[in-house]
Amino acid sequence: MTHDTGNGTSPNRGKVSHMATNDSVRPRAASEVKSWDIEADVVVTGYGGAGAGAAIEAARAGADTLVLERAGGVGGASGLSGGYVYTGGGTALQKACGIQDTPENFYNHLIASTGPTSGPSPATHVERCQVYCEEGVSYFDWLVSFGIPYKERFFDGPTWQSPADYGLTWSGGENAYPWNELATPAPRAHVAYLEPGTSVSPEAGPGQVVLKHLSSGAEALGVRTELDIRVERLVTESDGRVVGVVARRYGEEVTVRARRGVVLTAGGFLTNPEMMAQFAPPAYGTFLVGTEGDDGRGIKIAQALGADVQLMDRAEVSVMIDAPLLWPSIVVNQQGQRFVNEDTYGGRVGQHILYRQDGKAFAVFDEEIFENYPEEGRLFPQQPTWVCETIEELEKEAGFPPGALQATIDYYNKHAANGEDPQFHKKAQYLRPLKSPFAAFPVTKELGSFGCFTIGGLRTKATGEVLHVDGEPIPGLYAGGRTASGIPAWGYLSGSSLGDAIFFGRKAGASAANFKG
Amino acid sequence: MTHDTGNGTSPNRGKVSHMATNDSVRPRAASEVKSWDIEADVVVTGYGGAGAGAAIEAARAGADTLVLERAGGVGGASGLSGGYVYTGGGTALQKACGIQDTPENFYNHLIASTGPTSGPSPATHVERCQVYCEEGVSYFDWLVSFGIPYKERFFDGPTWQSPADYGLTWSGGENAYPWNELATPAPRAHVAYLEPGTSVSPEAGPGQVVLKHLSSGAEALGVRTELDIRVERLVTESDGRVVGVVARRYGEEVTVRARRGVVLTAGGFLTNPEMMAQFAPPAYGTFLVGTEGDDGRGIKIAQALGADVQLMDRAEVSVMIDAPLLWPSIVVNQQGQRFVNEDTYGGRVGQHILYRQDGKAFAVFDEEIFENYPEEGRLFPQQPTWVCETIEELEKEAGFPPGALQATIDYYNKHAANGEDPQFHKKAQYLRPLKSPFAAFPVTKELGSFGCFTIGGLRTKATGEVLHVDGEPIPGLYAGGRTASGIPAWGYLSGSSLGDAIFFGRKAGASAANFKG
Repeated sequence: MTHDTGNGTSPNRGKVSHMATNDSVRPRAASEVKSWDIEADVVVTGYGGAGAGAAIEAARAGADTLVLERAGGVGGASGLSGGYVYTGGGTALQKACGIQDTPENFYNHLIASTGPTSGPSPATHVERCQVYCEEGVSYFDWLVSFGIPYKERFFDGPTWQSPADYGLTWSGGENAYPWNELATPAPRAHVAYLEPGTSVSPEAGPGQVVLKHLSSGAEALGVRTELDIRVERLVTESDGRVVGVVARRYGEEVTVRARRGVVLTAGGFLTNPEMMAQFAPPAYGTFLVGTEGDDGRGIKIAQALGADVQLMDRAEVSVMIDAPLLWPSIVVNQQGQRFVNEDTYGGRVGQHILYRQDGKAFAVFDEEIFENYPEEGRLFPQQPTWVCETIEELEKEAGFPPGALQATIDYYNKHAANGEDPQFHKKAQYLRPLKSPFAAFPVTKELGSFGCFTIGGLRTKATGEVLHVDGEPIPGLYAGGRTASGIPAWGYLSGSSLGDAIFFGRKAGASAANFKG
Repeated sequence: MTHDTGNGTSPNRGKVSHMATNDSVRPRAASEVKSWDIEADVVVTGYGGAGAGAAIEAARAGADTLVLERAGGVGGASGLSGGYVYTGGGTALQKACGIQDTPENFYNHLIASTGPTSGPSPATHVERCQVYCEEGVSYFDWLVSFGIPYKERFFDGPTWQSPADYGLTWSGGENAYPWNELATPAPRAHVAYLEPGTSVSPEAGPGQVVLKHLSSGAEALGVRTELDIRVERLVTESDGRVVGVVARRYGEEVTVRARRGVVLTAGGFLTNPEMMAQFAPPAYGTFLVGTEGDDGRGIKIAQALGADVQLMDRAEVSVMIDAPLLWPSIVVNQQGQRFVNEDTYGGRVGQHILYRQDGKAFAVFDEEIFENYPEEGRLFPQQPTWVCETIEELEKEAGFPPGALQATIDYYNKHAANGEDPQFHKKAQYLRPLKSPFAAFPVTKELGSFGCFTIGGLRTKATGEVLHVDGEPIPGLYAGGRTASGIPAWGYLSGSSLGDAIFFGRKAGASAANFKG
């Protein structure tokens, strides 16, 4: 199974040659580096989507480019992902599928769904979303230029993971409330095509299709790659400029000079339990979606230079309930109240539960919904924990306050009968009064209901420059992917992490190649 | 009026000699400091509660101690506060008021109410709460030893601000759900006594009573003070040790040597709009509770050395509705649903609205509740926006989904008639069925319903040592108050910020004085 989030599916599957240790993340002075073992113009640290994008653009800008990867192969969390790239504005694929979209419409959806829900979007987030949307069409063309295959078919059904022979799908609640009132709904998950019969596994899923084509393209451009090598520290001149890295391979220290710049694309911090507890307790104890490489070191070695971080508390939160079951069901909290339209993006449902509902909710449905939940294509097969003739019985068994779930269902059913959901605005096609026998199961961390990865990280400009806490770029230092804070911010969309990683990785690589010092 | 939060009431009232500029927050090398204008063993940067605690303990440990304060007088946000110190475990004042409490009981409440609501408390937070509770009794004795007056009277009524002649009051929902089930309720806000007739103003409120006595004590111990001087940068040796600060007074640069250590007690970042937008959009646009000095510079100059930060997204959120009105009312979200027991601590209601309910809620009550809302002692006089004969009418006027508020009130009234609140567990004494005529007003940022200050900051040990991102202390650097992340974390209690500031300020001052280099 692959995962819908545009990121990885399975924790700790990356083959990593060296575990993180407690050695210092502080920089080494260039004056202390006696000799350089390897040299390049641009050194990219981590070969996932962001690293691939950075390497390609650095090489195209004429830089002698080297990628250092901890694991034994290309991919990172991007390689484990479902291969969704969130882009739009009227891409060739959208047009081929008959979908209308414009950069403005794309932006209206993106800023609303990824910005804060209380308070304005910061200027840096606005700028990043603007650039991302303005260049959405050419971004897709760029992906295609590397031979990544896309089927010109749009999947319009309820799912977190479209069937293999569809290239475009909904992945961010675009056609659900409230986003459907803020922008004209358009599907924007551009899904790499996986040959039929190919096992959908982390080793050969759609995310790996994307990485295979991008890394082939990078290789054709002369990008060099070193595997099984872990970046441990940055090397700085006395004026603060970053001029290389200290790495480790099979226990041996390796010094790597970067004549123009270093691009940090080393993933997030989900396999660092101390950082997870410190920053993101809601995601702590969930199914962690990434590789061992996501140990936070890429973030810390920049912070040691005074780099700023942001949104360290935020995480992507997939809820592991299949859409065909979830969307016609209701999801209620411990008080028996609904709190979100169930037909929205599953990552939004998940974030609501972990960040707003103390990590516990219940899916409540009925026999008819369960019978219509197709066995084929189930990603997260789920059976009812309770089946009851009456809501009163279900309240007792599941521990709801007496009468509370009944009141919720009375209100829901009354309006669902008219195809309406005045409180949460679920679409009419998923509205039907629930009727006996009723069923439910709990949705909690302990039951493995959530898949998470971190989305906070280094504060960067849209150019990929890493910002010092004084607001100025740190010379010679760039970042992308989940080492940086990007498009996924307060909210999330499937494909926005991989999409952001490649896109802003490209910006970072080009910026590094063009850095004059 | 003073504020209940154990912090300030009014933004921007501190008299600050120099505004923040965009000059660098990066450290200056000691080798570049030609001469020191002032020298001391321990240099404390900011004279609020944390600075006072630090100065006293540094001086007692034998250090020649100097406090640098930006404003023209002692106080900071602590001086603007209501003078609440949250402590317990069986203090002399608790005993004199007949209140039973133990350090264990104190801890059980504190960790539950300040820790994350989904996921475990990080080890650092557990340790900090343990130390704070173990030493709660001696902490109060220490405050009294400086002559801070406390009336041995317990105020048991509904309020955010006890009358002047009461020394002990509830301030953290101790006797409300869910905390009343996790620990034996005990009031723990120790409120400094303000002479009758003294105008309750920022210049002479209870917070200033605390600061006056502590600063007098510091002076008696030989602590020196420089006012109207703003700390701009740290000074570091080549090995990273902090050995002084660069400050500015009336446009002139002043170099200050710290032979043993620097203690950062310079407040939070609420007057830095860029940082507020970057980190804490929910609190952006609220009534900001602090002084101009809370510009984040104390945090940034440490980050520039690689110091770690945490909980930068979190804020204290007072809801500006008087307790006698709020507690018997119901508070509902835009869907017409209740979401918290209204008789809990007002800071909890506020955090729920800004962090979980998209910043908008409604207080709904009836004529009888409003008639019983005493005019005397109102902190936040509030009139109904809507008065309606029926809930249906109120739903239309206030824009609720049809029937949703009615369903909420039907459920509430049915159980309130029996003195029960099965969903949110409000206490029986505040439960009564709401009856016509009904009234309501909205609770939003735009209407000034919230007072906020930031509670994220530098990651420190309970000793006050500032931690580098590699987990090791930065030699010679200490922090306390809202420059650091402390007891106020995911949740808040009135008096926990001032209480934490003085308490861990003391630890920081003692640690700095004892630093051997």
